Amino acid sequence: MKAFVFDAYGTLFDVFSVTSLCEDLFPGYGKQLSNLWRKKQLEYSWLRSLMSRYRDFWGVTEDALVYSAKSLNLDITASERAQLMDSYLHLATFPDVKPGLEELKKIGMRLAILSNGEPEMLRAATESADLTNFIDAIFSVDSVKEFKPSPRVYDQLPSGLKINKQEIGFVSANNWDVSGASSAGFATFWIQRSGFETPEELGHPPTHCVNAITDLCRFISPE
Amino acid sequence: MKAFVFDAYGTLFDVFSVTSLCEDLFPGYGKQLSNLWRKKQLEYSWLRSLMSRYRDFWGVTEDALVYSAKSLNLDITASERAQLMDSYLHLATFPDVKPGLEELKKIGMRLAILSNGEPEMLRAATESADLTNFIDAIFSVDSVKEFKPSPRVYDQLPSGLKINKQEIGFVSANNWDVSGASSAGFATFWIQRSGFETPEELGHPPTHCVNAITDLCRFISPE
Repeated sequence: MKAFVFDAYGTLFDVFSVTSLCEDLFPGYGKQLSNLWRKKQLEYSWLRSLMSRYRDFWGVTEDALVYSAKSLNLDITASERAQLMDSYLHLATFPDVKPGLEELKKIGMRLAILSNGEPEMLRAATESADLTNFIDAIFSVDSVKEFKPSPRVYDQLPSGLKINKQEIGFVSANNWDVSGASSAGFATFWIQRSGFETPEELGHPPTHCVNAITDLCRFISPE
Repeated sequence: MKAFVFDAYGTLFDVFSVTSLCEDLFPGYGKQLSNLWRKKQLEYSWLRSLMSRYRDFWGVTEDALVYSAKSLNLDITASERAQLMDSYLHLATFPDVKPGLEELKKIGMRLAILSNGEPEMLRAATESADLTNFIDAIFSVDSVKEFKPSPRVYDQLPSGLKINKQEIGFVSANNWDVSGASSAGFATFWIQRSGFETPEELGHPPTHCVNAITDLCRFISPE
């Protein structure tokens, strides 16, 4: 293993760090709004890929927000919408992210991101979270205009990193994303931060299950 | 318009008619189990299509049931699983289905089904609901090995029915399914039985919105 490639949203960045802003803007609805927003964001990414009607993740995320607010009967102003979208550029990282990346970097691993996000929003979130020094490359679905878990998304990694598929480990906290990468032939690491989560019944299970990014270095044999 | 093509599950057949059996088998969990089962059934159809790992709808439906039961910590026996799967072959129809199809048949419309379901489960549900006399043809995603809303699913209709695309109206209560058919270039009818539902933000809106299948005949001009 020469490189670890990380999913971004839900794996490095906590998408539910928008919940408190949702709650501030719509008291009593913070959790419901942020849950529905995330659910529809993923649904729209899958549906648009299947329809062959790609729209970048910024657009899909905004569409999902508009739907979710309407569906909960929340009157959302243009400025509130902009504020909530902006929060996607400043997501919190999970506590194990920085220590985990630091350890892997120290032992010489190459680290990259492969995400649904469009390049500009990924760059902004990575900078805002102070991860730039750890991340060697950022890959986006935007180059293939199809969202995860399309095999075309994962297949860009070997040529992008200029290493063999067998030397890449793909890491995600989203089990369906792990299934996609496993199905595309990569070694995969499923992060289950909350302890036991029910695995998806999609075939193509993870190669390894871990509880945190700080668990990854034990898979690297010292040289 | 010479033909109406109907989505099956959620449009003709009420997928939530399994709720009472879910409740009988798992008291207190009927609604939760049937909701999650339906949600995962659709998710798995989208994810497997995107992964290029088609499995027919019977398999996907069973996978979704297994996941949902596990996720709710319900211990499901093989016989309970078989009973629940069997209920998918005997779904109730919505009250407007038979009167609506009868009216359309009387004025000479050709009527068909286009569904995610695999052919055998569609045939069984259609027979069990006594709809065989109304339905001229049953089309399944199984012929293209990709689920809705892939354009390849809808594109089989003109050649299958041997009429022009412009003469076909596609009818579904699932808004995302309507978007798929609209995006593929068909005239579409979105059935909103519960009155107001929030439309999906997927682009490609329905051509027409109606409240029931019995509303469709007013779109046919008398010859």
